[in-house]
Amino acid sequence: MESTPRTTVRRLADRGRYDTATVHAILDAAPACTVAFVEEGAPVAIPTIHARLDEVLYLHGSPASRLLTVAASGEELCVAATLIDGIVVARSAFNSSLNYRSVVLFGRGRLVTDLDEKLAAMRAVTEHILPGRWDELRAPTSKEIAGTAIVAMPIEEASAKVRSGPPKDDEGDAAIWSGVIPLRTVPGEPLPERDLPTPESVAAFVRSAPSA
Amino acid sequence: MESTPRTTVRRLADRGRYDTATVHAILDAAPACTVAFVEEGAPVAIPTIHARLDEVLYLHGSPASRLLTVAASGEELCVAATLIDGIVVARSAFNSSLNYRSVVLFGRGRLVTDLDEKLAAMRAVTEHILPGRWDELRAPTSKEIAGTAIVAMPIEEASAKVRSGPPKDDEGDAAIWSGVIPLRTVPGEPLPERDLPTPESVAAFVRSAPSA
Repeated sequence: MESTPRTTVRRLADRGRYDTATVHAILDAAPACTVAFVEEGAPVAIPTIHARLDEVLYLHGSPASRLLTVAASGEELCVAATLIDGIVVARSAFNSSLNYRSVVLFGRGRLVTDLDEKLAAMRAVTEHILPGRWDELRAPTSKEIAGTAIVAMPIEEASAKVRSGPPKDDEGDAAIWSGVIPLRTVPGEPLPERDLPTPESVAAFVRSAPSA
Repeated sequence: MESTPRTTVRRLADRGRYDTATVHAILDAAPACTVAFVEEGAPVAIPTIHARLDEVLYLHGSPASRLLTVAASGEELCVAATLIDGIVVARSAFNSSLNYRSVVLFGRGRLVTDLDEKLAAMRAVTEHILPGRWDELRAPTSKEIAGTAIVAMPIEEASAKVRSGPPKDDEGDAAIWSGVIPLRTVPGEPLPERDLPTPESVAAFVRSAPSA
């Protein structure tokens, strides 16, 4: 993935990362993203669920949704996703910050009409929400397939920005505590609707999550 | 805050919430947001840290940053923030989802030049990152104040969208486990830079966070 003028991180350039593996890892780890588009000349940003297959971002939703309709139109889209990893507690307000991983993608969407691609994308979205779940479920019905709009956005440009590690303090204020409070997203106890054995997807997710 | 055509949640209208208290609570709970603007006719979305005071969203950054420069220009902005609360494990892929709280705001920014407002916004940003931290720190120097750009965006339009609770499954598939995996963001053990007593802001944050 090339760094273009639009995706070059202009400030804090040491935080800019452009390799595809970094971009993909952040995108895959983020449970949701924000899709921005232009409507009547004004910016609109809408949070939504996504999935990635190779160099293509997939969005899904109702065929009647505003986001999916615009995303399918071929207009330019910008997609951002962010993970917050910690609170950077510096010795001054000026250097206080967050540790984070973020990506910004540019591309144009197209409505997915090919059935195989559509099913692969629906699978990817389901697996993005909860890995292993797709194979535990029956295949989608034709009504469900027709009731789902999938938009594919080939990732044309992408950049990642990452801050990690301790505060970067200036000289002085040496008697002030500084450090990082790590933040983690952790699952709680699953809340079943009925008394059935916990499926492997749910058990594996709870098991594999980082402990607090 | 009024619901305008632009902020009316068109799909899943039962998830749309418009009261100011809900919008503010989500905005205040989100550690970061995504700011979308239009650049040469194309959408750009950039993740950043924010704070809110009454009906004004504040953004901060380097005076040279692209985001702050555009945000200060008075062009239309759209700001989205999302919190993920759980994985909705349905009996079908079709009804699988996330529990979340999100807000979308519209407005126009202006550069804050009044010193009192600027300091209040810098305080709000610091306190948004870590409540109680501002009063533990020395006042910002004039160099730090000059090195910080603050943009105020009065919130002209806003909407919130919330999904909570169990899956909404259709009839059938009754033998399939369904439920919710709650997700929480929890702090890990603080990582101090040096051996100093833990400040109250850090201790309180770790104490008050929901347990996993």
